[in-house]
Amino acid sequence: MRIELLKNEMIKSKADGYLISNINNVFYFTGFMDVSDATLSLIIPLDGEPTLLVSPLSYTAAKDNALNCLVNVISTEKKIIDKLIKKIKLNNLKKIEFDTLPTPMYIELIKRLKGVKITPNQNSIWNLRRIKDEQEISFLRKASTLADIGIKTGIQAIKTGVKEYEIAAEAEYAMRLHGSEGTAFDTIVASGPRSAYPHGVSTNRVISKGDFVILDLGAISSGYRSDITRTIVVGTPTQKQSKMLELVSRAHQKALECIHTDINAQEVDANAREVLKSEGYGKQFLHGLGHGVGLDIHEPPTLSSRSEDILKKGNVVIVEPGIYIVGFGGVRIEDTVLVHKNYGERLTQALYYL
Amino acid sequence: MRIELLKNEMIKSKADGYLISNINNVFYFTGFMDVSDATLSLIIPLDGEPTLLVSPLSYTAAKDNALNCLVNVISTEKKIIDKLIKKIKLNNLKKIEFDTLPTPMYIELIKRLKGVKITPNQNSIWNLRRIKDEQEISFLRKASTLADIGIKTGIQAIKTGVKEYEIAAEAEYAMRLHGSEGTAFDTIVASGPRSAYPHGVSTNRVISKGDFVILDLGAISSGYRSDITRTIVVGTPTQKQSKMLELVSRAHQKALECIHTDINAQEVDANAREVLKSEGYGKQFLHGLGHGVGLDIHEPPTLSSRSEDILKKGNVVIVEPGIYIVGFGGVRIEDTVLVHKNYGERLTQALYYL
Repeated sequence: MRIELLKNEMIKSKADGYLISNINNVFYFTGFMDVSDATLSLIIPLDGEPTLLVSPLSYTAAKDNALNCLVNVISTEKKIIDKLIKKIKLNNLKKIEFDTLPTPMYIELIKRLKGVKITPNQNSIWNLRRIKDEQEISFLRKASTLADIGIKTGIQAIKTGVKEYEIAAEAEYAMRLHGSEGTAFDTIVASGPRSAYPHGVSTNRVISKGDFVILDLGAISSGYRSDITRTIVVGTPTQKQSKMLELVSRAHQKALECIHTDINAQEVDANAREVLKSEGYGKQFLHGLGHGVGLDIHEPPTLSSRSEDILKKGNVVIVEPGIYIVGFGGVRIEDTVLVHKNYGERLTQALYYL
Repeated sequence: MRIELLKNEMIKSKADGYLISNINNVFYFTGFMDVSDATLSLIIPLDGEPTLLVSPLSYTAAKDNALNCLVNVISTEKKIIDKLIKKIKLNNLKKIEFDTLPTPMYIELIKRLKGVKITPNQNSIWNLRRIKDEQEISFLRKASTLADIGIKTGIQAIKTGVKEYEIAAEAEYAMRLHGSEGTAFDTIVASGPRSAYPHGVSTNRVISKGDFVILDLGAISSGYRSDITRTIVVGTPTQKQSKMLELVSRAHQKALECIHTDINAQEVDANAREVLKSEGYGKQFLHGLGHGVGLDIHEPPTLSSRSEDILKKGNVVIVEPGIYIVGFGGVRIEDTVLVHKNYGERLTQALYYL
């Protein structure tokens, strides 16, 4: 079914073949998830059966699990190229689109396939993947519930004297024990001045009284990822800290309130940003308001001032306003949100801990 | 210093500029580790100062941590391309090499930089990265010690009634609490018939008496990764299981014994493979004997029948013979090994649990 939808996209862009190398895209169309650095290739002729080329290490697993395609084993990267070229010639393909290719492979295909047009076109796949179906939404709900467990456990572990990575350890362990397939991305525990880094990962810094601590994590369920952030102050917040927390939570609420089908993503960003701007923190909100999430942690649609996306029912987006003050610290509040016709539903539902 | 060595490589291949987009390569040359899906670019003119282009989200962290380069902030991917083109024209670069580029970016650079040759050449960097220096080896030792802790904890957690992912949870938690910066790759707990998948990740399968359980995991220390596998039988092994375990451990030992500076990687693979072949298990050893490891989990040199690599002092390689019998199960034993002049030193040192 998904392959048929991709073929509709191919017809629109007049392509007669599509080549997939990204493991999440292969999973989306076949149900087979290879390891993260696998070399594999799914070739979909407009007229004809898709073929999945996998390494000998993945062959048995692919045979057992991949649907909607033939599975061929290919022993080396060079042979993948040879096999692809053979398939392309056999099917007489003339305009092939692809999601992603290692540049050396792209260069070789171009060189050896004179007269065949080979073009990147990720949009054909994103047009499908950005709208989640019922099953995908159930996986995203599960991943979000697991992230809530991680946040709750992580927040409980925050106290003076503890190292950032120890907090990450507790949160990740709780998610894993409840069935998370790993972490959706590198867990961020950014404390004290480090909380001013939007991408702070976690270090051996020891938590002190008065620190901001940003805890940003996600879980994975059936391949689908969630993303949540909470920020707390260790001990009693100063007036400035309270103000920052309150403002960011207001910006977050503002975004949630305005989400619905057919709103411009730009407008959602602008609404949240205005809350921070109006109090003089516009420049300290360094990044876009958010992004889509699914099999990947960053997907379309994008919530930012430059986005041209329009929100649709079935989009799942991250909403993550923040304030970052270099040398002082930062605050971010983030949820995974499902777009409905008239509202945005928080899939992550942990307390705000304000 | 590393940048000077890269410039020597550039001189050899007559390049006057090198463009780095891989986060581990950026870390190798600057000491700054960005998040895993960051868009960033380090441009190194042969004559001139390197410049690192990073997103606003990473700017403060990069300013605080990146050495040997200027740091510029770039707000969008499009602007990275504009800025790169400006730098390339300003420095009058005519032959640029790169490690990796998203294909659309490669296509745009080619189109907009007529008269400039732009070629992938990862070897220039691998020529440096494949030989680990003292500091890198100390990080790899640390990562290996953490992996030993993970294996010990994971093995202790294996018993009938437990789910595969629960074993992964215990192992990962122990590594993380001892300071691992995450998992070096998705932990594999492949039990029963699933042990015949070389890349089995972990599922909710419940461990039963008589199962083979393959536990394959790694830790990260200062960005460097380790890799270890042990296989055990739950309860008393059958004769066939014992035979498989014994053979794989002999193949593993054989490989370790023959590792030294200047041996062909192919020969190491052949020696280990012969042990399995001689007992009729040649075809069930589905993959190469191993691969280099460092900041990435798969690096040169490659230990396989097709490898053209020659081992050198300072290489760190994975040695991982295995037997996989579809429908029955599999065995793999794996260590992270440092190549010395006259021997291979196991950096992972956990018991074999035979």
